[in-house]
Amino acid sequence: MSITANDPKRKTWLDTPKDTDFPIQNIPFGVFLTRDDIITIGTRIGDYAIDLGALHQLGYFEGIPLTDDIFLQDTLNDFISDGKKTWRLVRNRIADIFDAENSKLKENKDHRNTVLFTLDEIEMQLPVQVGDYTDFYSSKEHATNVGTMFRDPENALLPNWLHMPVGYHGRSSSIIPSDIPVHRPIGQILPKGASQPVLAPSKRVDFELEMAFITTDANVLGEPIPIEEAEDYIFGMVLFNDWSARDIQTWEYVPLGPFLAKNFASSVSPWIVTLDALEPFRTTGPKPEKELLPYLQSKGKKAFDIKLEVALKPENSEETTVSKSNFKYMYWNMSQQLAHHTVNGCPVNSGDMMGSGTISGPTPDSYGSMLELSWKGEKPIKLNDGSERKFIEDNDTVIMRGYCEAKDRRIGFGEVRTKLLPVFEPKKK
Amino acid sequence: MSITANDPKRKTWLDTPKDTDFPIQNIPFGVFLTRDDIITIGTRIGDYAIDLGALHQLGYFEGIPLTDDIFLQDTLNDFISDGKKTWRLVRNRIADIFDAENSKLKENKDHRNTVLFTLDEIEMQLPVQVGDYTDFYSSKEHATNVGTMFRDPENALLPNWLHMPVGYHGRSSSIIPSDIPVHRPIGQILPKGASQPVLAPSKRVDFELEMAFITTDANVLGEPIPIEEAEDYIFGMVLFNDWSARDIQTWEYVPLGPFLAKNFASSVSPWIVTLDALEPFRTTGPKPEKELLPYLQSKGKKAFDIKLEVALKPENSEETTVSKSNFKYMYWNMSQQLAHHTVNGCPVNSGDMMGSGTISGPTPDSYGSMLELSWKGEKPIKLNDGSERKFIEDNDTVIMRGYCEAKDRRIGFGEVRTKLLPVFEPKKK
Repeated sequence: MSITANDPKRKTWLDTPKDTDFPIQNIPFGVFLTRDDIITIGTRIGDYAIDLGALHQLGYFEGIPLTDDIFLQDTLNDFISDGKKTWRLVRNRIADIFDAENSKLKENKDHRNTVLFTLDEIEMQLPVQVGDYTDFYSSKEHATNVGTMFRDPENALLPNWLHMPVGYHGRSSSIIPSDIPVHRPIGQILPKGASQPVLAPSKRVDFELEMAFITTDANVLGEPIPIEEAEDYIFGMVLFNDWSARDIQTWEYVPLGPFLAKNFASSVSPWIVTLDALEPFRTTGPKPEKELLPYLQSKGKKAFDIKLEVALKPENSEETTVSKSNFKYMYWNMSQQLAHHTVNGCPVNSGDMMGSGTISGPTPDSYGSMLELSWKGEKPIKLNDGSERKFIEDNDTVIMRGYCEAKDRRIGFGEVRTKLLPVFEPKKK
Repeated sequence: MSITANDPKRKTWLDTPKDTDFPIQNIPFGVFLTRDDIITIGTRIGDYAIDLGALHQLGYFEGIPLTDDIFLQDTLNDFISDGKKTWRLVRNRIADIFDAENSKLKENKDHRNTVLFTLDEIEMQLPVQVGDYTDFYSSKEHATNVGTMFRDPENALLPNWLHMPVGYHGRSSSIIPSDIPVHRPIGQILPKGASQPVLAPSKRVDFELEMAFITTDANVLGEPIPIEEAEDYIFGMVLFNDWSARDIQTWEYVPLGPFLAKNFASSVSPWIVTLDALEPFRTTGPKPEKELLPYLQSKGKKAFDIKLEVALKPENSEETTVSKSNFKYMYWNMSQQLAHHTVNGCPVNSGDMMGSGTISGPTPDSYGSMLELSWKGEKPIKLNDGSERKFIEDNDTVIMRGYCEAKDRRIGFGEVRTKLLPVFEPKKK
């Protein structure tokens, strides 16, 4: 079945901004609260949000095997469970409904009023209920930077790193959508030279520029996913800001890995861009530097050329772009990550989220965290308003953006935007 | 509100074995499939499983604020969300219904036939949908043994260990109930002296004797749970076998912690014993060896005297008890774990599961893993049938049991029993 939704010649009858992340070739999936306080599953074209629950009730998905309430849900999990064939049928159909040549919905004002929303009429929600969240550590530049800073510049990469996509489990309950603010965490910190820790607000709150992919039900307990099948189980991707508290991390992380330094929040962009929509932007990833075990040998273009940016915006001030990176820098691709994750038979379900790890590029302006950009705080970053940052300050907003670029359009992710609030103050009783 | 269900003088009109783990003072909660292929929430007294969905439909919970379908669900999550007051009302009511002095259900044969099942008529399910699973590392003896084996006997505990309950995130999707077999995992292993890893079946599959507690909705993003309130958010406990593959772990775990060495399976006992039922078995835990930060200072008896055993049963052979331990050995208690987990504002929800970490006691026969019992395989364990074990062999069954003991009864957890199958063979297509 071909992905006709990707046809670059297609135009839509909807009025869309020229440089939108969401042309009719994108058709992402998300969940939103409407003006009537109803939660529904939707898509976005230009600056319109489209209620797929309403479209389905009006019969626009006739002929596609969907349950009646598949879009009238507060998460995409069940739709994602329907599998790649169904996602593709739905995405192709949406492209047809909004095609400039198709007047059916265009000329039905009642239907139009029912299914179309402007962005100020909706509130985006977390798109999936995340069953399990795994974070990989798959940028060689990032792993090298961190190893150089904290261990040994001569042996920055640990011995396993070039042989497997190192990863660990994260916390699902603190994954939040864009626009939900986060409090500066408090935690145990060991002051320099001290032997006793203190409980204090983190002084080194950081972002991590990541992307995450969302899976469908992939396997049962015990069954590995072969690398050549891995992409069949990937629904799509989001931008992912894996908030980190570096001073809490340093003290807590041995021997079992980061815990409270990470699980206070991770923020995601609310529209899941499908792997199908990213198809035209495939590229070749870095060549493996070591001979890989066969279960990790991937063939063909398994990397994606997705331009990424991070901006910092102090309260009542302008934005400064502090990093420009690209998803294609990842040493390990998503197929390798999923094959590795399941080689022991670990079950992967609909709505699971897998983060890439911080995506740092080869140059200092492409590093994906303040830890690297300010080199542990030794080289503060200058912002456009004249202020400086080593890490994130109270009331700063971190904005991540990502998009693929073709000649005449871009397929983008929009943004994930999160304000860092001061430490939580319990309400007086 | 008093916990009348714990009244030690109470007797039941049900015929119960003298030494049962499930006297009328226990009243655990679980989920089972009935002879009619219906999933329901239930409890257990002696060797009877009791259908709470049916009891509720028959009006036996009148006066307790419960939705009609609260027990007609395939997980306990919604019931757990109802909170401690409701759990206690329901448990007290169940004790009354089955009290020897109460003839209402006893003398209604139709009702009895509807709600009572023998154990061979049901199939126990996973009791909760686990949102997030956290594993702590809270036995000082276990951490010391592992540190001695793999690092430095003089400095076996890492510097943070005595200051915080060290923990990390685990995988929810591979948590399974008792009686579901597990395949020996394959994974990357670095052979001794080699510089290149191989992909091979783990040769060092191990159990970890743990207990886990299950939480209710406790806090919102950003809000810590004070230690003195922590127990209000604990519904109950289960036995927990945190399967581990030691050779995979050794190679993969730096720097982000265990991943595929653990996430192939964790097995739980299917009946959740409430914290209320464990109330009479409180005891004092080990005295902290370092002055703790105030948020971790717990008052009163926060440990529980729960006797634990692990038995190994080779295929077609008899069981051998290989370890006898006790939950009271835990250096960090559950209140400390929950206060620590949320000090940074990490949200805890209904159905989250928190493992204790391997529960090793002070003597070699009380160690909670084969790694420790056989000291890395250097001292094989002799089984009753004459065979020896360094780690778990194909078709061995691992059985964990746990119970609290009073003068004339025990409050127990039953068992978690899991057979280790050989490596998974994909079906031929």
